[in-house]
Parts: sequence; structure tokens; C-alpha cells
Amino acid sequence: MLAPQGERRLNRQKLVSGKLNIFALPGVPLVQPGDDLSALIADGLDRISDSLVDGDVVVVAQKIVSKSEGRLFPLAEVTPSPEAKALAATADKDPRLMELVLQESTEVLRAIRGVVITAHKSGIVMANAGIDRSNITEDADGEIALLLPEDSDASARALRDKLKQSTGIDVGVVIADSVGRAWRYGTVGLAIGCAGIEPLWDQRGDTDMFGRILEVTEVAIADQIASAANLVMGEAGEGTPLAIVRGYGGPRTDRPASVAVRAKDEDLFR
Amino acid sequence: MLAPQGERRLNRQKLVSGKLNIFALPGVPLVQPGDDLSALIADGLDRISDSLVDGDVVVVAQKIVSKSEGRLFPLAEVTPSPEAKALAATADKDPRLMELVLQESTEVLRAIRGVVITAHKSGIVMANAGIDRSNITEDADGEIALLLPEDSDASARALRDKLKQSTGIDVGVVIADSVGRAWRYGTVGLAIGCAGIEPLWDQRGDTDMFGRILEVTEVAIADQIASAANLVMGEAGEGTPLAIVRGYGGPRTDRPASVAVRAKDEDLFR
Repeated sequence: MLAPQGERRLNRQKLVSGKLNIFALPGVPLVQPGDDLSALIADGLDRISDSLVDGDVVVVAQKIVSKSEGRLFPLAEVTPSPEAKALAATADKDPRLMELVLQESTEVLRAIRGVVITAHKSGIVMANAGIDRSNITEDADGEIALLLPEDSDASARALRDKLKQSTGIDVGVVIADSVGRAWRYGTVGLAIGCAGIEPLWDQRGDTDMFGRILEVTEVAIADQIASAANLVMGEAGEGTPLAIVRGYGGPRTDRPASVAVRAKDEDLFR
Repeated sequence: MLAPQGERRLNRQKLVSGKLNIFALPGVPLVQPGDDLSALIADGLDRISDSLVDGDVVVVAQKIVSKSEGRLFPLAEVTPSPEAKALAATADKDPRLMELVLQESTEVLRAIRGVVITAHKSGIVMANAGIDRSNITEDADGEIALLLPEDSDASARALRDKLKQSTGIDVGVVIADSVGRAWRYGTVGLAIGCAGIEPLWDQRGDTDMFGRILEVTEVAIADQIASAANLVMGEAGEGTPLAIVRGYGGPRTDRPASVAVRAKDEDLFR
């Protein structure tokens, strides 16, 4: 699914001589289940008298994708399993939340007081299967957990297709979440889904300036785009859940963000 | 060293409504030991008829910082210790290179055929203590390894001071390297040193739109800036080892990038 070598070289040149413009879309309203994100993007661009151009990468915060897809689960309606209760006791967390975390996960990597690291069913390793405090809201009936999209890559593809259909413009889409990391403090933006960009830029066969074949063959383009957009989107709430990365000249493919999930048998840190 | 809460809020507002311009400096020559990076930055900006403005973040590839500091070690002059020979046998790598890796590291986290993950003496966990193939060059006398700077935060501070002195402009500096990660394929830009920006934006006390105190308290700003710059700097060789991130409105402090190194006793993945 990678673009042909020649095209990659071409894109490469374009990229390394590149100039990126990254801006958040202001005034995006709180998203409700069923909302059309492509319309919110169009409205946000209208507010700054801008519009999509070919090659733009639209970065969308996971929160509003999940909300638009109705991934809201009232904790009051969750019955924790014995396994969830045990995990809750270990981590000192709400057993109903732990039940949702387990339902969303394929494996618990680590669990200690205050910290539960799992492999989300998408394969992405993260805390609480992506359900952190900022993904829990409250209404009259109590707390509501916001889960990750069912299939973030499918959500990204659908949004890309919708934008193409409504505007005629060919964009890339990245669905970004903020995640913690091994070995380091602080969260970074991560691409939990993407469409229309190559998430892992394979430089196999490319050489450095001394003609040496590069040992490092893949660059996590989609994750870096998510981190770059995070700098303008902010973290708190949903003030700026949409950003545009303009000028990115790297390869465009249809490969999903899931290709960046390291195979378990190639992972030394599980 | 964090800016006062009030100022952070102000910067926060500035940041989340922000617009970033990220561009690489073209035509940077191959760097030699002793070269003045501040002059190379000025020359690169001249080439595009631009100049530094207050608040710019200058992102510099680790390679040229190391070269300017003469961190070049001919493998022919390295005598591998028994420990290095054993590690080389395990990893199927050059014993002389493994000797340098061990000298640069405080701990070997993982070693299998083809892969050696260590804690560099800076605390940063990375492959081969940051000496990957693209950090090994060749001359008539054989292979030469390029090590990370002795103290990347000190290097960043010195460059920031030099730029302030030569231009009068107050910039941030990030020294970026490309690193692999647990759980995911692909490398991302990481800040191995910084000066003049807050590397870990502490949002403790900030609340989301629902007034809930955020559980995730720190954002890895310097690492995200390194990843963003990586998108325009490219990976191969030294074609674009310098980039400018313009418009970043987050907090400025004097804290080093080393504050992002997770304490060993708080790290579940060592």
C-alpha cells in the first residue's frame, strides 16, 4: 500500500523542504451524539474565513469523534464483574469504570494503585483503555464515561470521504488522543486513527548523505502530526478539538493508524 | 521554575488559540567540530530572507550539535571491555560500538539480536545510547561514531544565550533526536535538551470545561515540538538539521528537558 519508491522520493523532497502551517479551528460547539463533524469543520473554517485545500490534514480530537458516535456509557448502568472489582481494588478506582476498561481491552499490562495500563482492543497501549478523567462527564443521572471510537481508522476514513464528498477536496484525517509513555513524564498526541496519509513513512532503501542505508526505516508520521496539532489544540475540555495541518508533503496512502501498533512478539516492553 | 498560575493561564489562552508556522532552514552546510551553530542559524534564515522573532523555538538536530561539539569517536581507537564483547555477542553488533554504548549508558534495559536498549547517562531510554547507524560515518581511517552531546540541556542553554547575545532576540531552543518507542513502530522526534520553553506543561489546577480537575497534569511540550519539527526536518543525513517553530504561545521557563525523564521507581516499563 506504500506509494511507489519514486513518488516517495518526490514526496520526501517536498517534505524536507516543507513549511507547515498548523492552526486550531475556533468556536467549535460542544459535540452531541449524531453531530456531523464535517459540518463542524466547515463551520470552524468559515469562522476564520478559510477553507480546506488539497493535502490538508484535518486533526480531530478523539473526544468529539467518540461523542458524535455516541460512545457515552452511564456508569450507573454498568455492573462490574468480579475481575473488574479485583482490578478496582488493586488500582483504587471505580469498579464500574474498570469494567468498561476491561471490556475495551484485550490485556492488562500493569495495574498498581492509581494506574491501570491496558492494551485497548485497537492494540494501542494506554492508561484506562483511553477513558481518563477528562473522558468522564456528569449529568443529573451521574457519571458518564466516554469510550474511544469502535474503530478509529474507520471513523477517520468516513470523515475523509465525507469531506471529499462535501468539499471536493482531498484531505488527510488524523484522530488524535493524548497518551502517557514509558520512560518519560508528560502526555503526547497520538494518532489512534488516520486516513489519507502514510502513518509510518517507510524509508527502507533511502540512504543518508553518506550513502549508508538507514537502519531506522520508519517514521511515525501520523503520531507526529497528532503531537504537532496538540500544540495548538490544548488539552483541557473541548475548546479546540479541531486543527488543520497545512503544507505536509509526505506520502499519502490508505494505510490505517493500526499499522503503527507493534506486534506483541516484537515488543520488548509488554 | 514554572511560570505563575496567572501567567500560565494567559499563555494557555494564547496557546490554544494559536497558529504555528514550522519551517526548515535550507542549505545548511555539513557541520564540523567547532562550528558556531548560531551563525549557521543566522545564515539559514538569511537564505530565506527571514530572521528570528521573539518567542521562536529553534529546533536543532542532535547530529549537528554533537558534531559541533566534536563528539566523534573513531571505532579503531576503542578497546572493547569483556562486558562490551558479551553485549556485542548477544546483540550481534560491533564490540567497539557496544563499548561506546556502555560508556554512554547507566543501564542496559534490553538486549537481543540486533537490538540494544539502554538508559543513556542523561536518563533518556533509547536504542544504542543514541548511536544508531546514521550516527556512524566513515573516513579513510574507518568508522567514526557520533555520540550524543555531553549535556544536551547545557548545549541548548548555551545556544539560546548565544542567539540572545548575537541577535537580541529571546528564543527557545530544542535539541531533537529521533527515537523508537515501546508498543509502537516508527520513530518520533524527542527533545533531548531544551532551553527557554517549559518542557512539561504542568496543568495541575487547570480544569476541563466541566470544571473537573484534570487527572493528566503534564503535557510533553518540548517532545511535541521536536516531533512537529521532525515533519519538516526529514530523517536522512543532515539536509535539514535546523527548523523554526514560530507562534508557540505556551509557558516559558528555564527548566531542562531532563525533567521529562521518568524516575526509575515511577517507571513500570524498565
